[in-house]
Amino acid sequence: MAKQGESKESKPSEKGITVKKSEDISEWYSQVVLKAGVADYAPVKGCMVIRPLGYAIWMRIQEHFNKVLEKYGVENAYFPMFVPESFFKREAEHAEGFSPEVAWIERKDSSEERLALRPTSEAIMYDSYSKWIRSWRDLPLKINQWCNIVRWETNAVKLFLRSREFLWQEGHCVYETEKECIKEADDYIKEYKSLCESLLAMPVKIGRKTDSEKFAGAVFTNTMEGLMPDGKASQLGTTHHLGQNFSKAFDIQFLGKDSEKHYPFQNSWGFSTRLIGSMIMLHSDDKGLVLPPRVAPTQVVIIPIFREEAREKVLAEAEKLKKALSGLKVRIDQRESMTPGWKFNEWELKGIPVRIELGMRDLESHTFVACRRDTGEKQSYNISEAKQKVSELLDNIQASLFKKAKDSIDARTKKTSNFIEMVQEINQGKWVEVPFCGEKPCEADIREKTEGITSRVITGNISKEHGEASCINCSKKAKHFVIFSKAY
Amino acid sequence: MAKQGESKESKPSEKGITVKKSEDISEWYSQVVLKAGVADYAPVKGCMVIRPLGYAIWMRIQEHFNKVLEKYGVENAYFPMFVPESFFKREAEHAEGFSPEVAWIERKDSSEERLALRPTSEAIMYDSYSKWIRSWRDLPLKINQWCNIVRWETNAVKLFLRSREFLWQEGHCVYETEKECIKEADDYIKEYKSLCESLLAMPVKIGRKTDSEKFAGAVFTNTMEGLMPDGKASQLGTTHHLGQNFSKAFDIQFLGKDSEKHYPFQNSWGFSTRLIGSMIMLHSDDKGLVLPPRVAPTQVVIIPIFREEAREKVLAEAEKLKKALSGLKVRIDQRESMTPGWKFNEWELKGIPVRIELGMRDLESHTFVACRRDTGEKQSYNISEAKQKVSELLDNIQASLFKKAKDSIDARTKKTSNFIEMVQEINQGKWVEVPFCGEKPCEADIREKTEGITSRVITGNISKEHGEASCINCSKKAKHFVIFSKAY
Repeated sequence: MAKQGESKESKPSEKGITVKKSEDISEWYSQVVLKAGVADYAPVKGCMVIRPLGYAIWMRIQEHFNKVLEKYGVENAYFPMFVPESFFKREAEHAEGFSPEVAWIERKDSSEERLALRPTSEAIMYDSYSKWIRSWRDLPLKINQWCNIVRWETNAVKLFLRSREFLWQEGHCVYETEKECIKEADDYIKEYKSLCESLLAMPVKIGRKTDSEKFAGAVFTNTMEGLMPDGKASQLGTTHHLGQNFSKAFDIQFLGKDSEKHYPFQNSWGFSTRLIGSMIMLHSDDKGLVLPPRVAPTQVVIIPIFREEAREKVLAEAEKLKKALSGLKVRIDQRESMTPGWKFNEWELKGIPVRIELGMRDLESHTFVACRRDTGEKQSYNISEAKQKVSELLDNIQASLFKKAKDSIDARTKKTSNFIEMVQEINQGKWVEVPFCGEKPCEADIREKTEGITSRVITGNISKEHGEASCINCSKKAKHFVIFSKAY
Repeated sequence: MAKQGESKESKPSEKGITVKKSEDISEWYSQVVLKAGVADYAPVKGCMVIRPLGYAIWMRIQEHFNKVLEKYGVENAYFPMFVPESFFKREAEHAEGFSPEVAWIERKDSSEERLALRPTSEAIMYDSYSKWIRSWRDLPLKINQWCNIVRWETNAVKLFLRSREFLWQEGHCVYETEKECIKEADDYIKEYKSLCESLLAMPVKIGRKTDSEKFAGAVFTNTMEGLMPDGKASQLGTTHHLGQNFSKAFDIQFLGKDSEKHYPFQNSWGFSTRLIGSMIMLHSDDKGLVLPPRVAPTQVVIIPIFREEAREKVLAEAEKLKKALSGLKVRIDQRESMTPGWKFNEWELKGIPVRIELGMRDLESHTFVACRRDTGEKQSYNISEAKQKVSELLDNIQASLFKKAKDSIDARTKKTSNFIEMVQEINQGKWVEVPFCGEKPCEADIREKTEGITSRVITGNISKEHGEASCINCSKKAKHFVIFSKAY
């Protein structure tokens, strides 16, 4: 899929990354995404194209998460992308929260109501829920959808991280009791964390949002936050306990076992293609993309190296090796118009975790050379133990990417109760855990004074054991420990 | 997911289908889709909700077709749903063909161009293609996307068959030579047929469209058509050979092996969630949905039948039976607030291919009773041979649904060269193969004279062996045999 050089002579450097991650992370990031062929800018303002390599990563994420959904009995469905204006306004806080970002379609007919393109689907789904739910026997109702979302943000597109249209999943569940509802809102954020850590090798923090940062219409919001190499936090997923706010607004009622009518409790939760961008920013390097093996659409590329007279022999051996590696995702690059060196650069740029070089000399010694994308380390293995060794290598890469990311994030996670120190640390690319009162006006004050520092996640409540602590800003009694930082 | 009765007392008839397929097929069809919980009308005019049962069928179709895509080296991707007006107009015939159905979004900013919601994605995808394709090495380029599509048709929604928003796949491939391009346009329509026949047990006819019915902007269109029980044809998928029409309009050029610039050849092809509706209309009956086993999200439901004292024993046996059937999609219905009879009706309504009844007497004789959804036939089997017998039963149901549908369609496929007879047959619910000149004005004349009879598919060209034949309408020399009918 990548645009390839016009001839064997074209130099790898022309298509390689031309800036260093440490020097200009924003330009470096765009180059990695574009040149590795993960995504492209669309010709429509504020939009992006997810190219096959990016979409294959999304499909791996879907595959992982569909299994989680099944475990919880959540079923996939599809609701219209059009939300009538009046529905959207039924939950006042919700409507107000989203209104600046909503795109509307032109009316075809003056008698028709104005229609929004979904910025999230609570309003359109819950009207149907109010028809479907009658009795306690219809609960819990657990539905998810994978779909496109439109939020008309004015900012320029930042590939995967900010665009007017993006892909996501949104789960919307309804329960008889608040207890079940809260439990599952908390379970789903843990599942998100597990997806990030086990599949994407991306360490994250989860916890509640402060009131200022919670979802418009929710009782509380759980968030999952990642610290990016540039020191900004990336909000990677949220689960919302909606209480009865929406069931009252949309008149969802059920006849309980007590033969009385009740409003059920609801949660909603989502993560988006932003996961892909954050993962790329975290792991990739000056040579291009670095993909954790578990999410990589291709885990191993075999590059046969030969003079013309040995062609058949080496290719046959490559096929045999591919067969020996069955169960892993392997491709052989036998294109004839590129040199092996050109191919090495290409697959490094595209982040394939393991490259295997296979030449005449290897055939003679019954060995092959495997090169790790993450460290560049090369080692020779016996062909007879290929499956075991390459599997181990992939596991090592997965573990090592996670550890490297975790060490880096731990080193950039600070604690303080001094306001000036907090600001200094954040300006040096860290996120900082501080005691905080939890009040909206105080948080607005912090944001204003610091040009955009916001609370990301509550990491713990302050109980008696911690002694009394004062809020880092207003000096009132602190309620929680909260991570503050800059954010995408 | 289905709305369930408020108590054990509620009668199955209240939730069952209240009209016969033979008496009012349109009302019968809506009731089947709604009451089985496959889909629902949305609160937005012209739109529908695909409920979990319907979406699970769509996921089975996706799973099947993603394997086909892989075989051809077609990769999934995602392009924006917004198409700038100017792009849309680059291929004049294409723009004109779609313009009545296009929905536009309200401009946020007067400097921004008007944006359409994709009615199909040629225009937005091919602009990116013109950036990505430089050399013969970049070809073939084969991309597919699964996405939502918006066509603002004025007609009222007909669940799965006609709605303002629907889901589909659209493949868009680019080739060096016309030969490859045509070959694959023809291959993909064969793959569509194989999907319909092997997975959905739905016999179809494939072939070229006449000029009047081809895609706006195509050189030719292949179509797949099914004959519905009401005698109307349903267009179930199309593949278009676009020639160089779009590569010229979007300035897609590649440097050939001859070092000259060339316009490549393109095809595009798609099928939609309409497949689901047509399949339901074809197989279902007066008791509700009938699902072919290969596409059924649940293939077997086990209903334990017991008095309270035998509860544990029967449930344990049901679990054992489920385990014995591993590899098949089995669920046990152990809900306690419904009677076995209520459950029988429920699962019949929802089209589960095989129902297994398991009671105390069965336990004693080491047998179980299996009931086929399609014929209602019941038979007792030995528990020790459960897996083999139930697998055979599922295969038989699949084959028998296909055969029944094929016999019915064959019996309603007529040939004639007499115009009056053609109209009579079509009005009696048949589709009719006739000699036809192939000319647009003649086809428009037929449509007008008959109030909506259209050509569906060219079944063969008239060669010398057939002798001379005259067009059924204009009496000029006939070029093809063409099936005419009414259509959705």
